[in-house]
Amino acid sequence: MTRQELIAQIRTKQSFLCVGLDTDLSRIPKHLLSHSDPIFEFNKVIIDATKDHCVAYKPNIAFYESLGSKGWDSLGKTIDYIPDTHFTIADAKRGDIGNTSRQYAKTFFETLRFDSITVAPYMGIDSVSPFLEYDHKWVILLALTSNQGSQDFQQFQNAEGVQLFEHVLTRSQEWGNPSNMMYVVGATHPESFQNIRHLAKEHFILVPGVGAQGGTVGDVCKFGLNDDIGLLINSSRGIIYASQGEDFGDSASIQAKSLADQMKAYFV
Amino acid sequence: MTRQELIAQIRTKQSFLCVGLDTDLSRIPKHLLSHSDPIFEFNKVIIDATKDHCVAYKPNIAFYESLGSKGWDSLGKTIDYIPDTHFTIADAKRGDIGNTSRQYAKTFFETLRFDSITVAPYMGIDSVSPFLEYDHKWVILLALTSNQGSQDFQQFQNAEGVQLFEHVLTRSQEWGNPSNMMYVVGATHPESFQNIRHLAKEHFILVPGVGAQGGTVGDVCKFGLNDDIGLLINSSRGIIYASQGEDFGDSASIQAKSLADQMKAYFV
Repeated sequence: MTRQELIAQIRTKQSFLCVGLDTDLSRIPKHLLSHSDPIFEFNKVIIDATKDHCVAYKPNIAFYESLGSKGWDSLGKTIDYIPDTHFTIADAKRGDIGNTSRQYAKTFFETLRFDSITVAPYMGIDSVSPFLEYDHKWVILLALTSNQGSQDFQQFQNAEGVQLFEHVLTRSQEWGNPSNMMYVVGATHPESFQNIRHLAKEHFILVPGVGAQGGTVGDVCKFGLNDDIGLLINSSRGIIYASQGEDFGDSASIQAKSLADQMKAYFV
Repeated sequence: MTRQELIAQIRTKQSFLCVGLDTDLSRIPKHLLSHSDPIFEFNKVIIDATKDHCVAYKPNIAFYESLGSKGWDSLGKTIDYIPDTHFTIADAKRGDIGNTSRQYAKTFFETLRFDSITVAPYMGIDSVSPFLEYDHKWVILLALTSNQGSQDFQQFQNAEGVQLFEHVLTRSQEWGNPSNMMYVVGATHPESFQNIRHLAKEHFILVPGVGAQGGTVGDVCKFGLNDDIGLLINSSRGIIYASQGEDFGDSASIQAKSLADQMKAYFV
C-alpha cells in the first residue's frame, strides 16, 4: 500500500486505529476450540467486527509462531482474509545481517504479502535496507518502545545529550523516507512525541501501548499528529479480549468504535 | 544443556565449532529438490558429515520461516535429528515486550526444544528476562555483530566513552549469568575481543563471521578464550555450501574438520 492510499483510507474512515491480532489460544473464547483452526476463526470474527472502525491490522507473529507450522497456516489465512483496503503490519521485530534480512523480507512481503514489518534497529543499515527494496512495502523501525525495558538502552545518551532512539530516528532517515519507513513510539511516552515529531516530521508513527499498557489517544495526538495525520494507534488486548464470551465480536466492535470515535475529533 | 555439559563436550572433542544451518532452497544441490523435504534432507547429510567436528548447530530461522509452514516442519525435523550431545541455537534475533517474548520462549524452548536463542537487546530487560526463566536454557544476546551496520548504533558512545555494546554487556549481567547468558560478537571485530573479555570474563561468546565474512579462528582466539574456552565459533556458508555437487556432505566434513583442527591447538 502506498502512502497516498493509506492517507486516503484514514481520511475516508476518519480513523487511524490499528487492531493488534495477538491471538492466544489460552485467551480466546472456549467455544472456538472445537474448530479445526480456532485462531483463524477468532481472527475472522474480530476482523468482521472491527473493519469499519480501523484502517490497519497488526498480527503479532510470536503468537502464531508459538504454534509451529499450524500457527503459520493460521497466519496465512488471516492475512488473506484482511480486506485489501486495510494496511497490514507483521509485528515481527526482525533484523539480521543482509542476506538473512533478505529472507525475512521474502517471508513477510512475498510469502505472506504483508504491507509492512516491524524491524529492530540494533544491527544497523544492512539489517534494514533489504526490506526497503520492495515497492509499496514499509519498514516500521523500533524507536522508543512502550515497555519498561525501553529505559535500558533506547535512552542511552551521547556527550551531546542525544539519546539512542533519537539517533535511530535521524540516522535511519538516510536509508528510508516517509513513503517506506515508519517508526514505533509507545503511547507510554506521551512527553516524547513533541521531540520525536521534530525529528521525524512527515513519517507515520505506529503507536502501541494504548489500552492495556495505559496510554491514551488524547495524549498521543497532542503532539503526535502531523498534516497527514501521521499516526497509527494500535490497541490489541483492549479490543480483542474485551469479552471472553460468545459475544466477543460485539465487544471488540464496541471497543474499536469507542477508540475510533475519539479519533474523529481530529478530522476537521 | 548446562554450562558443565557444554564445557565437557568441548573438552572431549577439542572443538568449539558451531555449524550454521542457513539452509537455502536456492543454494542446495539440485538433486535434493526431488525429495519431499529437501531442506531436511540437506540438513541430515550436513549433520551426519559434521557432527564429529562440532559441538553446536545454529539453524538460522529466517531461512525456514521464508518457506512458511513447510519450513517450520523442516526446522522441527532438523532439531529432532541433531544429537542430544550437541548444543542447539535458534538464530532468531527475537525480542519484544514481556508477554510477547514469553511466546517466543515457548516457541523455541518448548515447541522446538532448542537449548538457546539469539536475542536483540534493543527493548531491554523485559524483552530478555522471559527467556531466562527456563532451567538449562540460554539467551545469546547480540553485543557487537559481524556486519557493516554494527557501526550505526552498537558503537554509539556516551560522555564517558562507553559504547552501546559495552553498556549491553554490563547491564545485561544484572539479568543473567554465565550459566544462562552468552553474547554475540562478530569475528570481524578481532580488535575488540580483549576489551569484551574484560567486560564479560566468564561468559561464552558466540562468534559468527568466520569464513564467508572474513574472520579467522586465530584472531578470535588471541583474546577471546577464557579458562573454560568460552567461545563457540560459527561457520555457516563456508561449511554447508563448500560444494554444490552430490559430494556436498564430504566437502562440508572437510571444511568443518579443517576449522576444528585449528581449534585443537588451544587444548593443552
